[in-house]
Amino acid sequence: MQTDRRSWLILALAYLRVSDLQLLLELFGSVDAIVKQPRSRLAEAGLSDEKCAAVTTPDETALATALAWLDEDQHELVAWGDAAYPEMYTQIPGPPLLLYINGDASALQLPALAIIGSRNPTQGGIRNAHNFSKHLAGQGFSIVSGLAQGIDAAAHQGALDAGGKTIAFLGTGIDRVYPAMNRELAHTIATQGALVSEYPLGAPPERWHFPERNRLISGLSLGTLVVEAARRSGSLITARLAAEQGREVFALPGSIHSPLARGCHELIRQGAKLVETAGDILAELRPLAGHMLAATSAASQEQAPIAEPDDDYAELRKYLGHDPVSIDDLERQSGLTIDQLSSMLLILELHGEVESLSGGRYTLAG
Amino acid sequence: MQTDRRSWLILALAYLRVSDLQLLLELFGSVDAIVKQPRSRLAEAGLSDEKCAAVTTPDETALATALAWLDEDQHELVAWGDAAYPEMYTQIPGPPLLLYINGDASALQLPALAIIGSRNPTQGGIRNAHNFSKHLAGQGFSIVSGLAQGIDAAAHQGALDAGGKTIAFLGTGIDRVYPAMNRELAHTIATQGALVSEYPLGAPPERWHFPERNRLISGLSLGTLVVEAARRSGSLITARLAAEQGREVFALPGSIHSPLARGCHELIRQGAKLVETAGDILAELRPLAGHMLAATSAASQEQAPIAEPDDDYAELRKYLGHDPVSIDDLERQSGLTIDQLSSMLLILELHGEVESLSGGRYTLAG
Repeated sequence: MQTDRRSWLILALAYLRVSDLQLLLELFGSVDAIVKQPRSRLAEAGLSDEKCAAVTTPDETALATALAWLDEDQHELVAWGDAAYPEMYTQIPGPPLLLYINGDASALQLPALAIIGSRNPTQGGIRNAHNFSKHLAGQGFSIVSGLAQGIDAAAHQGALDAGGKTIAFLGTGIDRVYPAMNRELAHTIATQGALVSEYPLGAPPERWHFPERNRLISGLSLGTLVVEAARRSGSLITARLAAEQGREVFALPGSIHSPLARGCHELIRQGAKLVETAGDILAELRPLAGHMLAATSAASQEQAPIAEPDDDYAELRKYLGHDPVSIDDLERQSGLTIDQLSSMLLILELHGEVESLSGGRYTLAG
Repeated sequence: MQTDRRSWLILALAYLRVSDLQLLLELFGSVDAIVKQPRSRLAEAGLSDEKCAAVTTPDETALATALAWLDEDQHELVAWGDAAYPEMYTQIPGPPLLLYINGDASALQLPALAIIGSRNPTQGGIRNAHNFSKHLAGQGFSIVSGLAQGIDAAAHQGALDAGGKTIAFLGTGIDRVYPAMNRELAHTIATQGALVSEYPLGAPPERWHFPERNRLISGLSLGTLVVEAARRSGSLITARLAAEQGREVFALPGSIHSPLARGCHELIRQGAKLVETAGDILAELRPLAGHMLAATSAASQEQAPIAEPDDDYAELRKYLGHDPVSIDDLERQSGLTIDQLSSMLLILELHGEVESLSGGRYTLAG
């Protein structure tokens, strides 16, 4: 087992992609076998010089550091093909080869919702992120985010406050927490959820890590909710990744005068679902989450469905016949307001279903 | 001419529909001929008893009142088939047979935008209605609404403040203004636009008139903008009418905690266009308005188009080649931020167009 982990670490430290791995596995049969190949065989297989060198002469210091880290409690590696490897990642382009996990790896098996947004949100945005997260974590979803200041932190905290699971994906090595301000939050997440990274231990917060990391946030999640985001911000790219991965994209609208609503409005125009309540998200994701949510499904019925206007039409038709009936009588009989009734009657009239007579009286047409 | 107007008034006072008229015109040739038919001929043609009676024994008092009203300045009738009859109404179900107009009938020939919403809006809603109206009236659109308190009144006022045209459709006879609070506004509209009604002089504000009147608001307009509306409010029915008439529907989003945003959000979910600026509306309506707006088209270019992200990709590709280039160099060369670059590079990588190397370096793939 230890040997196996070492082999995986060698491949991960060489920045092998899953596509590289799949090619090499076809040729050499196993991960352990791959790391024993001479450089020439790897090069023949098409691996770049840099990657060949990294596999055949691995960084022993980095390996030792990683294996020592792995000996500690709650530290785990989950590699491509492991039983614990999230099935959601088998469906996306560019899946991670190896994940470093600090916390409860089983949290990655729960149906997940990503909640992301601005690092400089409004107080209202923070409250919304916290409340949506708290509600949905309470319904059995793990809440996924990026441990940034602002919306990310509020999303993690909401799930923690619900006693639910939350997963933070890092753009650094798993042993570093960036930004440092969120160290306490990171510690709590590790005990009540999981910190996850695909970067080597000690990796600094390189700027290009963050968008790369974002594909893991959207990719693990059935849907991504954007709470507040400026136009052309990183959150929009994560949302775009979610859409390209075939995941749901949700956005909260806001005032047309708020710069932090612009990004969300842009997403809605591009097809993201406009969300007002946690129930809107549940309605979309519960069918996708399926059996994963069975345990909490009873509690999830609390939000009564909104009556469809079509129900009103069915109700109205009960009281319409070929004898003229006044709108005042319809009001008394149907329980609908005059405003509703007269609008509905007009629509039925335009459809040729109803005929209006003088004095606000109506009959069925024909 | 006077005879002709009298005949039209007889048909209108009999509540004839355009569909009735078309049938009778086929049989009897002209409006004047229709009103001279004996009751039996009209009944044979399929007209209801009520309508037959109203045509053959017209209400002479009502006729005299209407003809006297018509003698006054700025008072006009526009009937189905007249040159001044708005072409927009020839495209909708249930077109009006006859319009009573107080003001400038030619305002009904301008490209029109309806702006509607709550009678009890927020101050922000009032400001938005006023500003959108002012901007779009200044661009040559006539602003159409229903002279109600709140959003309607603010929409009319915005157009007046721009020195533009505005049209108010009444749910009463043209000689009555409801609500009375808006009498002064109505007077100004009559001098700088038009008041319009399809109801007989003196008709009271029957509650079923208002939704019926709403089809004229949406039907005259290329698009309908809903500024603030509660869920299940009359504004949503007007928007639905607009959609059924094949017109554009626009809605302003707002806070998820504002009950007056709920109606707009519902419309957006159903396909209404989310609008942030008057420019968003112009972009949709200008192509539909065509030659009607020629005179003001130069002024309308003020809103610069937002650069498409695709332009950024074209820019980025200029600096990518088969020699590895660092993200820092790309930042310097392209003028894009690291956040933008790394997101775009990731997307290109997932598309197989770009390959990432260690240390934040990139090359074209293949």
